[in-house]
Amino acid sequence: MTLPTPEQVNAFVAEVYPSAYADGHRCEEMAPGRAVARWLHDPATLRPGGLISGPTQFALADLVLWHLSFTVLGLAPMAVTSDLHITFLRPATGGDLIARADLLRAGKTRIVGDVKLWVDGAPDRLVAHAIGSYARLG
Amino acid sequence: MTLPTPEQVNAFVAEVYPSAYADGHRCEEMAPGRAVARWLHDPATLRPGGLISGPTQFALADLVLWHLSFTVLGLAPMAVTSDLHITFLRPATGGDLIARADLLRAGKTRIVGDVKLWVDGAPDRLVAHAIGSYARLG
Amino acid sequence: MTLPTPEQVNAFVAEVYPSAYADGHRCEEMAPGRAVARWLHDPATLRPGGLISGPTQFALADLVLWHLSFTVLGLAPMAVTSDLHITFLRPATGGDLIARADLLRAGKTRIVGDVKLWVDGAPDRLVAHAIGSYARLG
Amino acid sequence: MTLPTPEQVNAFVAEVYPSAYADGHRCEEMAPGRAVARWLHDPATLRPGGLISGPTQFALADLVLWHLSFTVLGLAPMAVTSDLHITFLRPATGGDLIARADLLRAGKTRIVGDVKLWVDGAPDRLVAHAIGSYARLG
Repeated sequence: MTLPTPEQVNAFVAEVYPSAYADGHRCEEMAPGRAVARWLHDPATLRPGGLISGPTQFALADLVLWHLSFTVLGLAPMAVTSDLHITFLRPATGGDLIARADLLRAGKTRIVGDVKLWVDGAPDRLVAHAIGSYARLG
Repeated sequence: MTLPTPEQVNAFVAEVYPSAYADGHRCEEMAPGRAVARWLHDPATLRPGGLISGPTQFALADLVLWHLSFTVLGLAPMAVTSDLHITFLRPATGGDLIARADLLRAGKTRIVGDVKLWVDGAPDRLVAHAIGSYARLG
Repeated sequence: MTLPTPEQVNAFVAEVYPSAYADGHRCEEMAPGRAVARWLHDPATLRPGGLISGPTQFALADLVLWHLSFTVLGLAPMAVTSDLHITFLRPATGGDLIARADLLRAGKTRIVGDVKLWVDGAPDRLVAHAIGSYARLG
Repeated sequence: MTLPTPEQVNAFVAEVYPSAYADGHRCEEMAPGRAVARWLHDPATLRPGGLISGPTQFALADLVLWHLSFTVLGLAPMAVTSDLHITFLRPATGGDLIARADLLRAGKTRIVGDVKLWVDGAPDRLVAHAIGSYARLG
């Protein structure tokens, strides 16, 4: 399998899951066992206090895990989220949101990844952590 | 504390967190230790295969837990999600999404609730289960 | 498949996983989509303050989910825990610990159950809640 | 606060929570924002197939998070597990179990840590991952 490029991932997501692309989610980096995604800051979606909402953070974590599955399975919608646990660590304010997924395990039926989320420019101040499993289909 | 009505909850959410309201999330029922919410089916947000996306399900689970916190704290944005674990059980297709939150524990600093999600009309076929904690502020 | 009785479950666990039996874990009830287990109170294992420890609660939750898998698969060690999320709700003190598992989903590769834990005699004061997945083998 | 040494942690745990010490759990390393613990391999506790059981892995993950809380709060039983999510990645067989906890966030009421578990000698083949929160008391 050839690792898809971020441009290929973005084109694929824009085609098969257009609302995610419209919501400002972008693939930034694809590497063996790793994917990085970005959410383009959109003031219209903020929670009271100017906070980037929990659902926005979840959506980016879920998406970057899908990108991570592409590093294992190639560019095809052959995996669905099985479960995802997200822990919110700090208020998230200010800029774009970045999520980096690292592969913990690619098994026959399940892909498990660890996700760290931060506001662009502050990678040492994580705003959330997620761990999720994708079930391989077919 | 007087239990807020669903109408009061909807008016409050529309004011302080308008994007949630705009995304079609509505409070349906408020009772001691229980809240029920609905997501109005929107084909534009579906995932490949016509599936109601994971982030849409998470957003409704998170929102109904916020509503649940109102049954304890009253109608004020004084609680934030601390962590949420969601397990996807079946493909979710077809109609509105319903989420029912039941209070497991209201402690001094934390409110814990259990959420069951199903497609309207099929309460015996859960599409997801979530458990989440809200941290009380102030 | 015939539903195994609690006596059959206890005999099976004592044979294939003797340390669980030796630690005082017992099957109490087996029903379609449900299993109930008990931990016999053992003062030697308590945490500071006389609390039933988190690991003891986890062990009982994990075991009752295994029993729950027997209601689907029969009496065979053909499932392993895939992930388990436990939320501690109240200090657990005083007596035996009871855990009731309810089946949320039995899929082709995964069995998901919800577990409620309480101290014997106080079913309305949950001390913990767990949700876990078992992966079906073979 | 002075960081406690592993010897001090072991002496403290042996005194206030003797069953954990008796079960073969040991503190190996304490550093700012990090703790490492070991479980001494005990064939009597294995699951069918010679596997290190889920509860044994959970107990070590929970304990190393307690050690991690000592790096923040000092050597006192002032924190209790609030929730813990464990994902099993591979069968764990063969030797001692090692768990390393890294601090994700130390807030006013909550300490969150990430735990990686492996069998001694194989740090690149994680057998489990956990994330847990400790609630600060008093």
